[in-house]
Amino acid sequence: MAETEVYWISGSPPSWSALLALEVKRIEYDSHRLDNAKKEQKSEAFLAVNPRGQVPVVKHGDVVVRETLAVLAYLDRAYPEPSLFGGDAERTAHIWQLACECDSFLRNPVGTISRPLFRGKAEAFRDEITAAVPAVRDELDALEGNLEHTPFLAGETISAADLVYYPVIMQLARAAGRDDARSLNLGLMPLADTFPALAAWMTRIENIPGYDLTYPPHWR
Amino acid sequence: MAETEVYWISGSPPSWSALLALEVKRIEYDSHRLDNAKKEQKSEAFLAVNPRGQVPVVKHGDVVVRETLAVLAYLDRAYPEPSLFGGDAERTAHIWQLACECDSFLRNPVGTISRPLFRGKAEAFRDEITAAVPAVRDELDALEGNLEHTPFLAGETISAADLVYYPVIMQLARAAGRDDARSLNLGLMPLADTFPALAAWMTRIENIPGYDLTYPPHWR
Repeated sequence: MAETEVYWISGSPPSWSALLALEVKRIEYDSHRLDNAKKEQKSEAFLAVNPRGQVPVVKHGDVVVRETLAVLAYLDRAYPEPSLFGGDAERTAHIWQLACECDSFLRNPVGTISRPLFRGKAEAFRDEITAAVPAVRDELDALEGNLEHTPFLAGETISAADLVYYPVIMQLARAAGRDDARSLNLGLMPLADTFPALAAWMTRIENIPGYDLTYPPHWR
Repeated sequence: MAETEVYWISGSPPSWSALLALEVKRIEYDSHRLDNAKKEQKSEAFLAVNPRGQVPVVKHGDVVVRETLAVLAYLDRAYPEPSLFGGDAERTAHIWQLACECDSFLRNPVGTISRPLFRGKAEAFRDEITAAVPAVRDELDALEGNLEHTPFLAGETISAADLVYYPVIMQLARAAGRDDARSLNLGLMPLADTFPALAAWMTRIENIPGYDLTYPPHWR
């Protein structure tokens, strides 16, 4: 048994961020995939790990950490290399700001777009989906501008900001790339045309050794 | 002019968290209070500081930091003493987990209760307010249990967790303590009876040197 364990759900962006952090740091871990369809995150066994019934959770010896940003902050303290939160105060601020802004400005509108699409309800939610697009576009524009100057969101090396944003953008790309999204004319896809620097950055993330181990199994 | 500047709005819990951090660390700062009634956070002058038009923002030399948790993380790196995010990985995880859980589970239901009360609309929003109370009570119960064992939320010394939760709970207490809240029978007040450990913790925060400088001027 590895010293570190992770509880996660396939395709959940917060879970994916935690898995990416484990791989970037090359940490050995035992993987506990919970089945969202069976609501395993609300099972008695998992509620004993996290009474809030949410993932990701990282367990490391006696330490149990929930909340994605706390998981990333913990892993960065427990396994300092490579650093996910920067070596100096200015870079630390930039990384935390980006990580928080993903939650404040991108995660919700992406959910508004992707949830109905994943459930095959594009037409029924056309108005809500269309209304969420400008906010998403504004955020992607900002990231695109950022990535025209540096290979990763907070500079020359990968950071927690990349690991927080990447799965959210993948969720968006997967939803917006569905056949039934075409009639909505979201104007987002293909990302390589609309946001080329962002698309190149996504390829950089996908070249992380161990990336394949984090890819949502049910997406294959 | 001080090296550090802060932009804030009176009574806004995120702004108050930033002001408390500056005081806990005894940082000298120039204070820029923005007037929410005049929407000064959307003025051209402030949009030049933060194009998102939100507070708090901390400026320190050339570094401009927005997003409350990023402000706290930055101040803790730039001014390490006293530490707000803990000296070891386990305490760091606990502090970040609490800070994130305040945003995930307490901030929104407190807003649902306090916004209509501050606008004198208790009756019109009775159902929404009443529906938000159980979630708030669950969170306060958890904090109360925690504070029965330690003087501060993450242990023996003050941390970012205390600075994030305190203003949100003050917002709740101020709203729930209004005369027109009485008929709603929220069952929360007075806090010293319902949550005595929490009330004692609030007094501990209020005894921080410099606390008075952070108290919302328009509440006096």
